[in-house]
Amino acid sequence: MDIAKTMIETAKGNAEAELCILNAKVFNVFTGEFLASDVLTACGRVAAVLPAGAAREYPARVRINAEEKLLVPGFIDSHVHIESSHLCPEEFCRVLAARGVTTVVADPHEICNVMGPAGLRYMIEATQDVPVTVFFMLPSCVPAGAPETAAHTLSASDLAPWLDEPGVLGLGEMMNYPGVVFTQESVLAKLNLLREYNDGKFGPLSGLSLDGHAPFLTGADLQAYAAAGIGSDHESSTLEEARERLRSGIALMIREGSSAKNLIDLVPAIDGHTARQCLLCTDDRHVVDLVYEGSINFAVRKLVRDGRVPLPDILRMAGYNAARHFNLRHTGAVAPAYFADFALYGDDRTWEPEMVWHKGRLVAEKGRTLDTPRTKTGHNEPLRNSVRLSGRLFENGVLKKECLAVEDKGLPVKVIVVIPEQIATRREDVLMPAENGLLQADPDRGIAKLAVFERHGMSGRVGLGFLKGMGLKKGALASTVAHDSHNLIVMGMNDADMLLAVESLHRAGGGQAACLDGEVLALLPLPLAGLFSDAPAEQVLAEQVQLNRAAELLGREKGVEPLMTLSFMSLAVIPSLKLTDLGLVDVDEFGLTDLYCE
Amino acid sequence: MDIAKTMIETAKGNAEAELCILNAKVFNVFTGEFLASDVLTACGRVAAVLPAGAAREYPARVRINAEEKLLVPGFIDSHVHIESSHLCPEEFCRVLAARGVTTVVADPHEICNVMGPAGLRYMIEATQDVPVTVFFMLPSCVPAGAPETAAHTLSASDLAPWLDEPGVLGLGEMMNYPGVVFTQESVLAKLNLLREYNDGKFGPLSGLSLDGHAPFLTGADLQAYAAAGIGSDHESSTLEEARERLRSGIALMIREGSSAKNLIDLVPAIDGHTARQCLLCTDDRHVVDLVYEGSINFAVRKLVRDGRVPLPDILRMAGYNAARHFNLRHTGAVAPAYFADFALYGDDRTWEPEMVWHKGRLVAEKGRTLDTPRTKTGHNEPLRNSVRLSGRLFENGVLKKECLAVEDKGLPVKVIVVIPEQIATRREDVLMPAENGLLQADPDRGIAKLAVFERHGMSGRVGLGFLKGMGLKKGALASTVAHDSHNLIVMGMNDADMLLAVESLHRAGGGQAACLDGEVLALLPLPLAGLFSDAPAEQVLAEQVQLNRAAELLGREKGVEPLMTLSFMSLAVIPSLKLTDLGLVDVDEFGLTDLYCE
Repeated sequence: MDIAKTMIETAKGNAEAELCILNAKVFNVFTGEFLASDVLTACGRVAAVLPAGAAREYPARVRINAEEKLLVPGFIDSHVHIESSHLCPEEFCRVLAARGVTTVVADPHEICNVMGPAGLRYMIEATQDVPVTVFFMLPSCVPAGAPETAAHTLSASDLAPWLDEPGVLGLGEMMNYPGVVFTQESVLAKLNLLREYNDGKFGPLSGLSLDGHAPFLTGADLQAYAAAGIGSDHESSTLEEARERLRSGIALMIREGSSAKNLIDLVPAIDGHTARQCLLCTDDRHVVDLVYEGSINFAVRKLVRDGRVPLPDILRMAGYNAARHFNLRHTGAVAPAYFADFALYGDDRTWEPEMVWHKGRLVAEKGRTLDTPRTKTGHNEPLRNSVRLSGRLFENGVLKKECLAVEDKGLPVKVIVVIPEQIATRREDVLMPAENGLLQADPDRGIAKLAVFERHGMSGRVGLGFLKGMGLKKGALASTVAHDSHNLIVMGMNDADMLLAVESLHRAGGGQAACLDGEVLALLPLPLAGLFSDAPAEQVLAEQVQLNRAAELLGREKGVEPLMTLSFMSLAVIPSLKLTDLGLVDVDEFGLTDLYCE
Repeated sequence: MDIAKTMIETAKGNAEAELCILNAKVFNVFTGEFLASDVLTACGRVAAVLPAGAAREYPARVRINAEEKLLVPGFIDSHVHIESSHLCPEEFCRVLAARGVTTVVADPHEICNVMGPAGLRYMIEATQDVPVTVFFMLPSCVPAGAPETAAHTLSASDLAPWLDEPGVLGLGEMMNYPGVVFTQESVLAKLNLLREYNDGKFGPLSGLSLDGHAPFLTGADLQAYAAAGIGSDHESSTLEEARERLRSGIALMIREGSSAKNLIDLVPAIDGHTARQCLLCTDDRHVVDLVYEGSINFAVRKLVRDGRVPLPDILRMAGYNAARHFNLRHTGAVAPAYFADFALYGDDRTWEPEMVWHKGRLVAEKGRTLDTPRTKTGHNEPLRNSVRLSGRLFENGVLKKECLAVEDKGLPVKVIVVIPEQIATRREDVLMPAENGLLQADPDRGIAKLAVFERHGMSGRVGLGFLKGMGLKKGALASTVAHDSHNLIVMGMNDADMLLAVESLHRAGGGQAACLDGEVLALLPLPLAGLFSDAPAEQVLAEQVQLNRAAELLGREKGVEPLMTLSFMSLAVIPSLKLTDLGLVDVDEFGLTDLYCE
């Protein structure tokens, strides 16, 4: 029997439904109603939504009485870097499915920075048989374009063949917004690539999308950015930014990540007109938050509790709007022909689903994913051994102390200052204490030393600086997750612990570590590309919790996730002051800047 | 300079804009605001929308001071049969452009019924160089599938090659909804054709659309219709229908045509949730209404005056929503990257634009289209001589009287009764007066005789019946526009005038005529496929007005456009009782029915 016929006959009760959910309170994205309904599925799609009771006699393979519980379309994370969870893609999807997220739009930007196109291929293959539909945006800014040593470059011509890859939805966040506004050649080539591809393949129809990333961009520059074809932005942290983006026809991806939490701040930008252009995303969210708080369902819970946005708008922002934005066919609604991606919620207002279906298949129940499609053997091998520090940094197998030496010139230095709950930083000029002619960290004023070790076997450089506002009181923290080039970043209140942290990650082939007084307090191994684990989510969670506790022991500021925040301190495309392997970067001035003040 | 660069540099004032509109009150579809703005265009698109005054010093080829007048995205007619205007496509577009309509989605269903694929090719070619963007839906129901003689059949395999045609947006209205619900083979083939094409070309992305047409379809049948992939319906005449379609995820195309006027009735279905799924269309609208009332701008005016729907929702329904529904890239907003299709309105609340731009080009001013791209010479030739009545009907070059003879069997006959402002009919059983053993029209009770002459040189059949509720008091009206097969339909209060009307259209090669007492009162020649004129809009209007006056002289009912309504009396897929060349059709029973009651 063909698909059209199967769908039609199932809707009429003449063919056996794959699934029949009786008596659910179904959220209707089109009318905003919650209607007592029976839902039938066939071919992994909804075949009919009938008034409750109407399908009681319909034939069905599986029949469930929803007892008036709420049935809601599966949530969509409109922009996420899976790598930030520290989970391999298969485990990430297991965790998300249990949270009622059935679709994600992933930007495999991190792994591509480390592995190049091989990272993209890995991500696509790893997400072929998982309980979530995973789409990809091609990383548009590898490398980020900041002054740093990068392992890989993805040019327009490198990206071109990937546009045809099934599951690719377009070009990922154009972080190089100065490159757009100042018409940088290599950036124009990517913009034109997408436009020409769309014109050629889709003619007048919407085709592939182009995500933005433009914190604080405004006025004519923002218009130029939009005119270049960029259709979304997830970097708004202020209401003014959010409103200007909406007015410019740029979809507002409202982010609630582990470090960057913009949700509540942006609520006033959401109204009956604009809600349609608002989407939810997590961007970067680590395993602890995913397991303990949730994913998009967490943002939904937060919005519901906040109370200012009507529930129908919240639920559309969490799914349907993203599907429409990305132009996904038949995704985001419990309605005939739509994919049978939905979740059933009790009335406990936790927004933790009791049951989750993906393409008509029950994939999670009471917070547990039903199947465990762990990573395939051998599949991960090419991602190992990615931490390659230069031999020049070592002496007899031990890191040289000189790696961390910062000369005292009697001048104040430019200190990077963390802004809580943001990944942007500001600058403060400080006269640091010295010892033996070398500048030291200053625990009393909460200023740590910061270093970035190039780790891809390229330059072998080490960038040095100082960091304030993390709340670190002693010891050291290090990470091979360090946006965007993922060199090895380390901060500490003494050089010895910093060197120990670096060495321990070098031995582990990547990860995150906390060291104190010559001891490794905790280490989360991230052997795959130095970005994520190959262990089950439960184990990664335990390791991460242990590491977080160790980091907490070393001290932390309220509103700062030390390791996550640390990993953004080398992201020299986000204002204002950052550190790369080449040194301190003044992001507002697009260039390296001397550590010392004039 | 490449496009991306041109757009960016224009937005920043570094390159000369094609057009700079200063100080307009721009309607923002995304936020619902009306913001004092300057608008710049490049490459036929909007490059920037800046706060009023900001672009005063920007370089621009053309500069216009909008003096705070309202700038609104061009309107979109989401479903229209151009043929119904009686204008050739070029003239139709000239008229629409002056009304602020810059995009239409046309279903060339009428001409394809008469000419087959040649009609489609003609329409596409005729709309290549006009001041409106014309998209096409491939006619899905040629022939309509009713019991009648059709000139052409477009099967799934006939349609397949046209899916690749630039400007084709999908499959047009699936009028054969019983064929869907009862899984008719030839209908399934078309549904599967579209699904497979979309899957193959667009993967998970929305691609081509599938329009619906399902008056009164409800419950599981409507769910089946939606499950088959049908995404819109423009046939709702009741609030209940409208609401059920919206709930089912079927976009509500609200129609305000010349015969079918559903706009005001459906207003209560529009609210803050549903407005997004509501589109405006005209379906069938003739030249007089287009010129005297308008097109989509007329519906806007009516909705504004009605007062129940907020203006931002009205304006989105009139444009942006349709663009989103059909998945049109960068259409429907005055925002960066969007096509520069917009119109400037004074504050006279007529919704007659003072200036209209299409892709950045000024195409109309004060109700007049600026360019006159009339039809190309020779281009129309294949459409002529399409009225071919069977030789068997004639004797010495004159139509035989027997063509119209209806035997008196002493039984009541099933009379078709027109419902004002609808194209649906109902049935009434009436004992008609007889003369010489033959049933006659009955002016006293307002019941005319009705006949349908096959005119494509096929069966040569003549269907006979009776029609009430048109208000005709004397004489006869005839038309070669007779949905859907466009045979020759004629109604009259006496056989002589009916035969004269048929003969006059036969001689004219198609058209519409009003005859009285042996005289042709008025004749509108429609020599192209018997459907539309090759004359300029102004002339067609004059001829149509003259014809309408003549028809009025013969009598008409309030709320009934006699010739337009007559042309739907053979459309045997709209309930309940219709007449084709094969005889009376009971649409609810999907078959021919005897004229006489049991």
